Amino acid sequence: MHLLTDEVKGFLSNSSMIRRMFEAGIELKKQYGAENVYDFSLGNPDLPPPPEIKAAMQELTDVSDQPFAFGYMPNAGEVSARAALAKLVSKEQNMPVPPENIIVTCGAAGGINAFFRAVLNRGDEVICPAPYFVEYGFYAGNFGGILKPVPARKDFSLDIDALSAAINANTRAVILNSPNNPTGKIYTRSELAAVAELLRDARRKFGRMIYIVADEPYRFLNFDRVEIPSLLDLYDGSVAIGSFSKSLSLPGERIGYIAVSPKLDNSGELLGALTLTNRILGFVNAPVVAQKLIAKCWDCQVDLDIYRRRRDAMAKVLTDAGIKFIMPQGAFYFFPESPTADEKIFVQALLKERVLAVPGSGFGAPGYFRLAFCVSEKNICDSAESFKLAAAAVR
Amino acid sequence: MHLLTDEVKGFLSNSSMIRRMFEAGIELKKQYGAENVYDFSLGNPDLPPPPEIKAAMQELTDVSDQPFAFGYMPNAGEVSARAALAKLVSKEQNMPVPPENIIVTCGAAGGINAFFRAVLNRGDEVICPAPYFVEYGFYAGNFGGILKPVPARKDFSLDIDALSAAINANTRAVILNSPNNPTGKIYTRSELAAVAELLRDARRKFGRMIYIVADEPYRFLNFDRVEIPSLLDLYDGSVAIGSFSKSLSLPGERIGYIAVSPKLDNSGELLGALTLTNRILGFVNAPVVAQKLIAKCWDCQVDLDIYRRRRDAMAKVLTDAGIKFIMPQGAFYFFPESPTADEKIFVQALLKERVLAVPGSGFGAPGYFRLAFCVSEKNICDSAESFKLAAAAVR
Repeated sequence: MHLLTDEVKGFLSNSSMIRRMFEAGIELKKQYGAENVYDFSLGNPDLPPPPEIKAAMQELTDVSDQPFAFGYMPNAGEVSARAALAKLVSKEQNMPVPPENIIVTCGAAGGINAFFRAVLNRGDEVICPAPYFVEYGFYAGNFGGILKPVPARKDFSLDIDALSAAINANTRAVILNSPNNPTGKIYTRSELAAVAELLRDARRKFGRMIYIVADEPYRFLNFDRVEIPSLLDLYDGSVAIGSFSKSLSLPGERIGYIAVSPKLDNSGELLGALTLTNRILGFVNAPVVAQKLIAKCWDCQVDLDIYRRRRDAMAKVLTDAGIKFIMPQGAFYFFPESPTADEKIFVQALLKERVLAVPGSGFGAPGYFRLAFCVSEKNICDSAESFKLAAAAVR
Repeated sequence: MHLLTDEVKGFLSNSSMIRRMFEAGIELKKQYGAENVYDFSLGNPDLPPPPEIKAAMQELTDVSDQPFAFGYMPNAGEVSARAALAKLVSKEQNMPVPPENIIVTCGAAGGINAFFRAVLNRGDEVICPAPYFVEYGFYAGNFGGILKPVPARKDFSLDIDALSAAINANTRAVILNSPNNPTGKIYTRSELAAVAELLRDARRKFGRMIYIVADEPYRFLNFDRVEIPSLLDLYDGSVAIGSFSKSLSLPGERIGYIAVSPKLDNSGELLGALTLTNRILGFVNAPVVAQKLIAKCWDCQVDLDIYRRRRDAMAKVLTDAGIKFIMPQGAFYFFPESPTADEKIFVQALLKERVLAVPGSGFGAPGYFRLAFCVSEKNICDSAESFKLAAAAVR
C-alpha cells in the first residue's frame, strides 16, 4: 500500500548529494579526526554570531517569564522587526522601502515558498540561470510550478538571449540569486537591466505579470565591493528575499524576509496574499526569538574580512593544484571546473584525500564541483596537498 | 494584470473572521481601555511560560557567542529534541515511540503541512468532523487536497455513520482534533476504535492507505482527567501531531512535532518523506532556540488549574445569561449555541457590549459561536453583565 505520492517517492530515491557528502564527512571525521578532514560540503557558517546577538538574547531571557514573551503576533511579523527590516532593505536597495512592503519569513526558503504559493498556478514556469541552488525546483514544484534552468555563459554571467528564448506564455517568474550559490557571481547593472527589459516586453506580449525573485541571502558577502544593483528599483514586478542565516550566523533559527518593490501597482494585494500564504503554509509567523533578535541587530554582521581571507587562501590552494576556477565575487563558494569530464570521479578522488566537495550535477552543471569555505583558513591551507594529490590521481 | 492566482485572490476576499474580530478588538480597547473589553476571540495563551523556560533561555544565552550556537542541524531535528519528544510522546501515547519516529516541526501547523505534502495527490480528500479548525482546509488545499467536513452529532461526538458515508476512493486521510478546537470535546476510546475499524475496511475496499491525523496540541488541557486514547496505538496508519504553543505558552516561536505510529509497516519511508517535505517547504528545520528549549523543558507545563477555574467561571457566566452550551472537557474554548438562528447577529450584539467572540460559521457550524478563555478569571467574571445584556437584546 503506497504511503507516499509517486512524486515524493521519486524525490527520496534521488536524495540530496549534499546530504550524502554530509554523512560521508561524519564517518571520515570519526576515523581521522575533524582537523584532518577538509569538509567543504555544507554552507553552514562556522563563525559565531556577532556579540550584539548575545546581548539581545540576554534582554529576551530577562523577560521570558512574562505573559506573551513568545506570544502570537501579526502573521506578517512584529512591528519592530518590520521597521528594522525596512531600514536594512532601504539601505541595501538604495531606495525607500516602507515596513508595509516587508513580510518577515522563516528564512529565505520560507519566503520563496510563501511567494510561490501566492502566485504560481499549476504548470507555471519559473526560469533560473544554471548552475542554481537545487532547492528552487522543489519550491516551485510544491505548488505545481516547473523550474526551467537556462545555462549561464561560461563566465557565469547571464545569457540574455537564452533567457529570452526560454520565456513563453507559461512563464511566471525569473529567479536570480546574486551573489550566486554556487558560483559566487554578482550580476551587473547592465545584465539585470536587460532581464528587466525582456520581461517588460514579455508581459505585454503574453498579457500576464512575470515576476523577478531577487534571492539575496549573500548580499553582505561582497568581497570586492562591486555594485549589487537593486532589482526592486530596476523592475516593478520584483520581490527581494533575504536572510540572516549568513550575516548573523543564525541559519538554524530560520529568519528572513520578503520585500515587495514599492514600484509595484497594487502591491497591497500581493502583500496581503503573502501574509496569508505565510500563515497557511504553517509558518504562521517567523520565529519570535529571531524576530526580536533582528529588530535589535539588523545592522550587525559577522566579519567579512575573515571570509575574504579564506577566499584568497582557497584560490591559492586551487591554483597550486592546477584546478581552473572563476574567482567568486561574493557568497562563500567556489565552483571550479573538474579536471575530469565526469566530476563525480574527481569528487571521489577528493574524498579519498579527505576532502569533501559536492558534484556540480547537483546544481545543474556537470563538469564542475562546489566548495563551501565555511571552515577555518588553516583548514583550507592544510587541504593543499590533498587537492594536488587528487588532481594528480585523475590526470 | 493579475498579481495572484485566482484561488489565493478568493481566499483574500474571505479573510478570516477571527482576524476581523482581532482588529475590532484593538479599536474597542483603545476606546474603552483593555480591562473593559472582553476579548474571547483569539487562542493566544496569556499565561507566562513556566519558570523552567527562563532558566533554559539563560543557558542558551550563555553560549550564544559560540560557533554553531544557532547552526543548521539535521532536517528532522536536533538529536536532543527528538530524544526528549520520544519520552513525552511515549508517555502521552502510553506506548514506546522511538526518537526515529519523530520529526520536530514548525508548530503543529508546520507538521500538518509537511504531512499533507508527503501524502496528498491532487484531488485527494481529507475528512474532518465539523465544527473544525478552519485552517485545515488551507493546509489540504496547499497541495491540491480537498477538505470534506462531516457534521458531528449534536453533542459534538463523532457521527460514525456519517463518516462512513463520506469515505470514497479519493479519501486519503481523516483528521481528528482532540481535545477539540472549537468544541472542547475529547473523543472516547469506542468512538476512535470505530473510526479505526471503518478505515481498515475502507483500505481493503479501495486498496490504498487512509491515514488518521491525530491533531493534539491541546492534549495536556484535559480538565476532568478523562482518557485521551492513543490513535498511534489504535491504528497503524496514524500520525500524532503536537505543539508547545499552549503547554509552554510558546506560540510565536513555532515548535511542535509529528510522530508516526510505530505500528506502521515501512514507517521509515514515511519518516524519510517527512524529513524531506519539512525541508523543501522552507521550514528546513524547526527553529533551533525552541528545539533547545523543549529538549530541556519537555515535561513542564503551565498551570492547568488556572484554565480549569476559568472554564468554570465562563460556564457560570453563560448559564446566568441563559446561553446553552456543552461543557468543554479540554482545550480552552466554549462553543455555545447562539440565542439567534443567525449567530452573526448575536456576535454583533456581543460586540456592542464589548465582548469579542467568533461566529460558528468560521468553523463550519453556523448557529454557534466560539469563546477562547485565554483571559484572566476576573475578566471572564466581569463580562457577565455584557452577556446578559446581549442575550436580552436579541431575544
